[in-house]
Amino acid sequence: MKRGPIVFLTDFGLKDHYVGVMKGVIARLAPEAPVIDLLHEVPPQDVLSGAFHLWASYRYFPEGSIFVTVVDPGVGTKRRGLLLQMAERFFLGPDNGLFTWLLDANPDFVAFSLENPAFFLPEVSHTFHGRDIFAPCAAHLFRGVPPEEFGPRVHDLVRLPVPPLTEEGNRLRGSVIHVDRFGNLITNIAAEKILSRRVRAVVFQGQKLPFLRTYGEVPPGTPLALIGSDGLLEIAVTEGSAYEKFGRQGEVIVEF
Amino acid sequence: MKRGPIVFLTDFGLKDHYVGVMKGVIARLAPEAPVIDLLHEVPPQDVLSGAFHLWASYRYFPEGSIFVTVVDPGVGTKRRGLLLQMAERFFLGPDNGLFTWLLDANPDFVAFSLENPAFFLPEVSHTFHGRDIFAPCAAHLFRGVPPEEFGPRVHDLVRLPVPPLTEEGNRLRGSVIHVDRFGNLITNIAAEKILSRRVRAVVFQGQKLPFLRTYGEVPPGTPLALIGSDGLLEIAVTEGSAYEKFGRQGEVIVEF
Amino acid sequence: MKRGPIVFLTDFGLKDHYVGVMKGVIARLAPEAPVIDLLHEVPPQDVLSGAFHLWASYRYFPEGSIFVTVVDPGVGTKRRGLLLQMAERFFLGPDNGLFTWLLDANPDFVAFSLENPAFFLPEVSHTFHGRDIFAPCAAHLFRGVPPEEFGPRVHDLVRLPVPPLTEEGNRLRGSVIHVDRFGNLITNIAAEKILSRRVRAVVFQGQKLPFLRTYGEVPPGTPLALIGSDGLLEIAVTEGSAYEKFGRQGEVIVEF
Repeated sequence: MKRGPIVFLTDFGLKDHYVGVMKGVIARLAPEAPVIDLLHEVPPQDVLSGAFHLWASYRYFPEGSIFVTVVDPGVGTKRRGLLLQMAERFFLGPDNGLFTWLLDANPDFVAFSLENPAFFLPEVSHTFHGRDIFAPCAAHLFRGVPPEEFGPRVHDLVRLPVPPLTEEGNRLRGSVIHVDRFGNLITNIAAEKILSRRVRAVVFQGQKLPFLRTYGEVPPGTPLALIGSDGLLEIAVTEGSAYEKFGRQGEVIVEF
Repeated sequence: MKRGPIVFLTDFGLKDHYVGVMKGVIARLAPEAPVIDLLHEVPPQDVLSGAFHLWASYRYFPEGSIFVTVVDPGVGTKRRGLLLQMAERFFLGPDNGLFTWLLDANPDFVAFSLENPAFFLPEVSHTFHGRDIFAPCAAHLFRGVPPEEFGPRVHDLVRLPVPPLTEEGNRLRGSVIHVDRFGNLITNIAAEKILSRRVRAVVFQGQKLPFLRTYGEVPPGTPLALIGSDGLLEIAVTEGSAYEKFGRQGEVIVEF
Repeated sequence: MKRGPIVFLTDFGLKDHYVGVMKGVIARLAPEAPVIDLLHEVPPQDVLSGAFHLWASYRYFPEGSIFVTVVDPGVGTKRRGLLLQMAERFFLGPDNGLFTWLLDANPDFVAFSLENPAFFLPEVSHTFHGRDIFAPCAAHLFRGVPPEEFGPRVHDLVRLPVPPLTEEGNRLRGSVIHVDRFGNLITNIAAEKILSRRVRAVVFQGQKLPFLRTYGEVPPGTPLALIGSDGLLEIAVTEGSAYEKFGRQGEVIVEF
């Protein structure tokens, strides 16, 4: 399989040098590797949020992409490090549920446990495997090392419980799983669950919202529901912030 | 004309995966294209702020640069997408005033309406044209597609009203158009409007400020006025924040 | 010596176009140069914080790396601009103490004062030498200009006082020098000062903390001390924030 680019998704933020030194490690070991920042502002240690962003993004990257995904509250404990091959792409990261949604979408994955220190930095800290293990393994993978050389195959991967989606009569009930920069409330209700039926209304916090195609169909300041760019039902306020109006608590109900 | 790098300016911020997936789209369609982040923290949906940063920055980038500029509250409505050729560079973005200052500075522009779906992603969402239209068009442009293949020429572009600059007797009156990270208050008064004359004082909120060359000419904590790095009059506080001292409201008056 | 990548460390933040235009300058003068963002969120004008991040990071980058480091409250005054060669790498930045820790670690440095305008932008502002001097000099250095062509050798570089580390009896006293994104309190106590001895306890704000290997050895919410990824003693709270619990004030005492 083609190799690269190397794509970073972490909860390291941009106020420290942690992301920078991971790139330094790549530049030393695979200077020719293109590197892309997908996201570094996953909320600190919020594994499920990282899992959401990874799932929402990976398909837009080229086949052969090497994702280095680090949201890792258990760093230094016995949790495994993984190299996954699925969906024609590679994924490195801790075995803590970061791949939950990806694994559900790609049952044909192949996984290896990162155990071969030949591909780690010479000194491995107890607190920063992004720099000492995941980044150097990504660089070696980019340079052509076959996945099976990184360690033994493993099968029983950690998956986290995801927010429930329930259907009862003509009502589908979900919840908000992400609030984006614009204050849009992104739900766990996928377009394919609702687009084949006639949606009568979307109800949130007791308020009936029109279900429309895009923000501009209602005047500024008006709340609405629509299918957002990730293919998920989203609650928005035209030229405003749904988060400021509603917060994020409460069931999201689609009435057919 | 030479093509590239691809330069992003958006209001997407860095807390979501939106910027990352636009880069994924480029990496798929034009993996050899250099990509530069100019700015992603334009205040959400503040088109005029985006227009300012674009104008202040574009001249420092190489000829042939392809700017992908997305501050797009009207996404999904009938507002046009544009490809502009001016100042030996290319600019892609919505036709909503984002190019206001650039167009004033470059009356010899050539503009095309992005209408050829051959250069879009196969599925175009109603809410994320940065990913589905502007980024893929930039990639195709980088790879050599001639501008006229993206759609018909257009002429009547949207321009936004900009803050007024008025002169009366020996006084020039403008206003603050941007507050930077250091709390410097950047005004709409260009250096060339004042440097040929003898400036007696700059007045802001009733306070006379010395007009100097650089921050270090007064002791820490002292307010001053100077020509900032964008070639605009700026109000600053040495080793401090003019924004914390003054806020940003009020006329800025230059007295000759 | 090998040249590149060009690595940026600044206090410019990401809310302005300043970082972007520095990259534009590099793209014009050395389009083939790889560029890495190490850090742009050094607190505004906090030279010593920049010095810490640079020291903690540089060794992870390839030999030949060209660091462009700009935390520069004295821009436009007579403070010198420097090009330093040390530790098989290059460093450009103001002579204001930004290199304090690096110089202590690398007494064999060679330093030049940036005085040759042939390598500056044609117009040099009084307020933005990152764009007008440091970035273009980095580009020319990348393209092979010998260090001595940038200006005369200099020797008496500015160093800043660093927080004291004192030892008395069986107690070592230091302080917190950085709070990271996760709320970890990073101290000026290096691993090599304590790992050869038996640490009985680490005391902070009157509380005795266990000295352990990694976060996961105590239950969530528990404070602990450990050697962090920079090789410095660090105070943390497992799956929580030591900064929220303690703030950052107070001596850190290691008891042997």
